[in-house]
Amino acid sequence: MNNPRITTFAWVPVFARGFVRDIRARWALEEVGQAYDVDLISDAKTPEHRLHQPFGQVPTYRDDEIDIFESGAIVLRIAERGGVLVPRDPAARLRAIQWLIAALNSVELYVMALAINDVFEADRAWSKDRHSKVVEDLQGRLGDLAAAIGDKTWLDGDDFTVGDLMMVSVLGGLRGTPQLDPHPTLAAYVARGESRPAHRKAMADHMAVFDDADAA
Amino acid sequence: MNNPRITTFAWVPVFARGFVRDIRARWALEEVGQAYDVDLISDAKTPEHRLHQPFGQVPTYRDDEIDIFESGAIVLRIAERGGVLVPRDPAARLRAIQWLIAALNSVELYVMALAINDVFEADRAWSKDRHSKVVEDLQGRLGDLAAAIGDKTWLDGDDFTVGDLMMVSVLGGLRGTPQLDPHPTLAAYVARGESRPAHRKAMADHMAVFDDADAA
Repeated sequence: MNNPRITTFAWVPVFARGFVRDIRARWALEEVGQAYDVDLISDAKTPEHRLHQPFGQVPTYRDDEIDIFESGAIVLRIAERGGVLVPRDPAARLRAIQWLIAALNSVELYVMALAINDVFEADRAWSKDRHSKVVEDLQGRLGDLAAAIGDKTWLDGDDFTVGDLMMVSVLGGLRGTPQLDPHPTLAAYVARGESRPAHRKAMADHMAVFDDADAA
Repeated sequence: MNNPRITTFAWVPVFARGFVRDIRARWALEEVGQAYDVDLISDAKTPEHRLHQPFGQVPTYRDDEIDIFESGAIVLRIAERGGVLVPRDPAARLRAIQWLIAALNSVELYVMALAINDVFEADRAWSKDRHSKVVEDLQGRLGDLAAAIGDKTWLDGDDFTVGDLMMVSVLGGLRGTPQLDPHPTLAAYVARGESRPAHRKAMADHMAVFDDADAA
């Protein structure tokens, strides 16, 4: 069996470091204990790359059986292939997938809306005025999520699943903002996830690519 | 075995009819040929409902084994339980899940951004100015997707999967807007999905709830 391969960027600006979604694939691979190879690209908008990722983004993932994009599907593939992070009990399995999709569809939209407004639309006329509306919507969502987690260790109780991996990664998109400050249990949940050895290793390897590029 | 049950709204304003996400669950259930029951609620923000849906939304789904929320997870559950729309081949299965997640994470964000700007923020100072930026981002994404579909019948070729069900449903969020007009192959893809008997039945049953409510 060949190592799985992921594709990600050879370089990104400083503000994007720590946020590119290859971290999600790396984290899942480290949780599994699966060695992998990385293909570094400088441009994801090429026709060649779009054959693997139609939206011209990263990461992509392939192994001896499959060739896919979309970080949620990649994490699920890695976890199922490695036999970890996806419970065997049918109900617990579906709840883990439910939380993975909730992270991507019910939470990330609000996290991205803040980045879109405050970073990508920062120079637009509406950005300053719109900020408080975006924050209000995001805070509502974070309050709901904090209530759902309550005093549990992970979203479904004691076991860390693909749902937690994705939720912690999505909430990590708020790093550097004060948005988690009103939700100490949520901030503690994210810290718990990010302190896992597999996450630390994944993040270190992610950042090392850019350190190497800067030094070259 | 008891029928599965879904929860949705007893009534929504006219502009929201045809767009509430219970359609996704209904459509999957019709594709499977699975009879189901519907619990109608007037308020999704109650503590009782939030035990099943922490964000205070609909739909929720339960059967004899599980109790979940999040339309993507619900559709996957219904399809896996019914043995349809999820290919058995491991690579084709993962591609179907990849497209389901792409619909929810890489496309719906842009579709929702338009609804947020043009409907929910219509009375805000920035709405008119920001419209063209939101459309520009959405059109880029739709162009990528149209290129990915090309002249294929469905996203992965000849077989309709959970990925298509979700992508057609997400793109259905653009109904009533001119956003698909520049992409005739994409518009034809959506029409192909929406003309499936299972979709027609699901949409008719969805709308009938509100017709009954109006008549009462």
